[in-house]
Amino acid sequence: MNAIDPSLEAAPVADWRSYPIHADLMSLQAASDHIAVTWSDSRVSPFHHQWLRDNCSCSQCVYSVTREQLFEIADAPEPLHPQRTRIDEQGQLLIDWQNGHHSAFHPGWLRAHAYDDASRAERFAQRPQSRLWRAEMAEQLATFDYHAVMNDDATLLQWLLAVRDIGLTQLQGVPTTEDVLPVLATRISFIRESNFGVLFDVQSKADADSNAYTAFNLPLHTDLPTRELQPGLQFLHCLVNNATGGESVFVDGFAIAEALRQETPELFRILCETPVEFRNRSRTSDYHCLASIIALDAYGAVSEIRMGNFLRSAFDAPVAQMPALYSAYRRFIEMTREARFRVQRRLDAGQLWCFDNRRTLHARTEFDPTSGARHFKGCYVDRDELLSRIRVLQR
Amino acid sequence: MNAIDPSLEAAPVADWRSYPIHADLMSLQAASDHIAVTWSDSRVSPFHHQWLRDNCSCSQCVYSVTREQLFEIADAPEPLHPQRTRIDEQGQLLIDWQNGHHSAFHPGWLRAHAYDDASRAERFAQRPQSRLWRAEMAEQLATFDYHAVMNDDATLLQWLLAVRDIGLTQLQGVPTTEDVLPVLATRISFIRESNFGVLFDVQSKADADSNAYTAFNLPLHTDLPTRELQPGLQFLHCLVNNATGGESVFVDGFAIAEALRQETPELFRILCETPVEFRNRSRTSDYHCLASIIALDAYGAVSEIRMGNFLRSAFDAPVAQMPALYSAYRRFIEMTREARFRVQRRLDAGQLWCFDNRRTLHARTEFDPTSGARHFKGCYVDRDELLSRIRVLQR
Repeated sequence: MNAIDPSLEAAPVADWRSYPIHADLMSLQAASDHIAVTWSDSRVSPFHHQWLRDNCSCSQCVYSVTREQLFEIADAPEPLHPQRTRIDEQGQLLIDWQNGHHSAFHPGWLRAHAYDDASRAERFAQRPQSRLWRAEMAEQLATFDYHAVMNDDATLLQWLLAVRDIGLTQLQGVPTTEDVLPVLATRISFIRESNFGVLFDVQSKADADSNAYTAFNLPLHTDLPTRELQPGLQFLHCLVNNATGGESVFVDGFAIAEALRQETPELFRILCETPVEFRNRSRTSDYHCLASIIALDAYGAVSEIRMGNFLRSAFDAPVAQMPALYSAYRRFIEMTREARFRVQRRLDAGQLWCFDNRRTLHARTEFDPTSGARHFKGCYVDRDELLSRIRVLQR
Repeated sequence: MNAIDPSLEAAPVADWRSYPIHADLMSLQAASDHIAVTWSDSRVSPFHHQWLRDNCSCSQCVYSVTREQLFEIADAPEPLHPQRTRIDEQGQLLIDWQNGHHSAFHPGWLRAHAYDDASRAERFAQRPQSRLWRAEMAEQLATFDYHAVMNDDATLLQWLLAVRDIGLTQLQGVPTTEDVLPVLATRISFIRESNFGVLFDVQSKADADSNAYTAFNLPLHTDLPTRELQPGLQFLHCLVNNATGGESVFVDGFAIAEALRQETPELFRILCETPVEFRNRSRTSDYHCLASIIALDAYGAVSEIRMGNFLRSAFDAPVAQMPALYSAYRRFIEMTREARFRVQRRLDAGQLWCFDNRRTLHARTEFDPTSGARHFKGCYVDRDELLSRIRVLQR
């Protein structure tokens, strides 16, 4: 077991990932419904017969062109038991099943998918983690050069990791023509369309169908809180900004939520548990979404902020809960206004914000539309697309 | 109070809805933090001062062009109290606040947004409800004529309500040219793009990047379970179907989930509570989504099914939970195969399926690609867009 066959470096059905061998299979112990595998580093991983049969990667079970499963576990006999198990000269786990089917498991793949407690904890510890920020981010802004992002995959990856983990980035040296934004966005993936179009123009308009298209102060918000899935990434590309006022403001919604949890846990809980309706109505559309302002993941970590005061319906909660809901909501708005959390920066022509719209709240200070031109071009790309692109770049 | 001023039929800021007056305001009773309103039908609705001030619709608080709020409740004095309250000759509730601000509330709007228990229960009872179906649906298919849907808004609305509440519909008389599907879909709204394109072609392909693009039997599944938001509506438009085999199969995933809840509640619970990873990898994309197979809404009703055996990762659950997870998963697959739930129909040229992809699982029986041509054109539209369109049509 010391010499690994180099042909095994990639598993037979590698699903476009490689599975390096970090430990060898040393011994197998049979139990009634599983096989307990002992690895060369002494870790013991139980694998249930059902799980092993389900994950057989032979050409009968998986179609080699699409690398997708043809077999369904409901078609396996039950109870399911191996007739013979062994570790072959190449270090693979081989199983002959009761009905004559044969399965082979690459040790790198098997280790990467082991579900003993130690293996699961190891994978959990390796998951991406958000890096929270406050006002000091104004001096430490994650800034990238447009041409480097467009031409160099390593820079692209660094930028996308910053978007994923920090949630606020700036690109500089961006050409100030209207056709540039879709070219940049599709360096990640396709653009997410909305009722405001594939691309939208943030300008003061007489017939505005959103307060975003006025010259007013626009309070801190996420875009499209009225949709079940808020857009993941938002791009704002400055084509011209000669107007007085109209600075960009950002806060890390996750940092504010965590501060709220520390400072007034009862108000934090209310914003996690109370569904609030956001709505956006126009002559041609009528969107509603009922969701909490703070969402938590399965582990209790803050995973999403949904906020847009100008897109919120009247609160609809039981009478007894209404006063506390207002206390929590007012407190959250007050915190978004506190200097400790706020980053305020003017975006000039040739600069572009790209931020996590489900985390980083954005605002615009009032501007004077008669003092000069101000035109930002915007679009959205969803989080699934960001994460897919990162995974492909990391292969 | 018997004669309502007709100019009040529409509230001053009507947000594109009208608020008919079902009851008059009869009297007001002041309390420390709210006003209790008594209606002409004797209902009593408390409205908190914070809530009333928050929902002031005057032109200082709401921008009349966008009908979006400018005021933020965090800017109101606290404690907040009215200096004077009264019902005017037109039946409106008028409030003068301590700082001189004036608010007027239209009785129709106020009643529509009242949050006493009776008013909330009334609204809850009026929400749309899914109509579950089983195999008998094959004889009762909700079928609509393409030209009627395209030319008549009342038929369009009937079709969209069937999609929302039944989740499986067929259109007939659809021209068999490739440009028709986007025209039909945009009768609702814009199309949701995916890595398979804006439109996709379901055909047997040598270089398939999905088992959908082969001639294999494709088991019952939802599309794109690998995305955080599964596409809401799926369209499959048959341009030609001369091949042997390849029938469409549908089951109501909500009906199966409810049957599972009745028959084996412990297995139902496992599919609601266990996150399962779906993934779809190709040379250029790598999507992951971790979510339960059955999702429940805040009231415990089944709200979404996520299922695609060929797009599922190896189960990753604690060792002690794995056997029960397999029992639940096998049982769910077995139920999708039971005749009591299945609708099987051949789709012919000029027919089109439109179904709720987050509820109705679909499958295709194996076909013989050498026996004749088979070409379906497909696309997605999200649920937000369906519901928005229904609301606009219902105004």
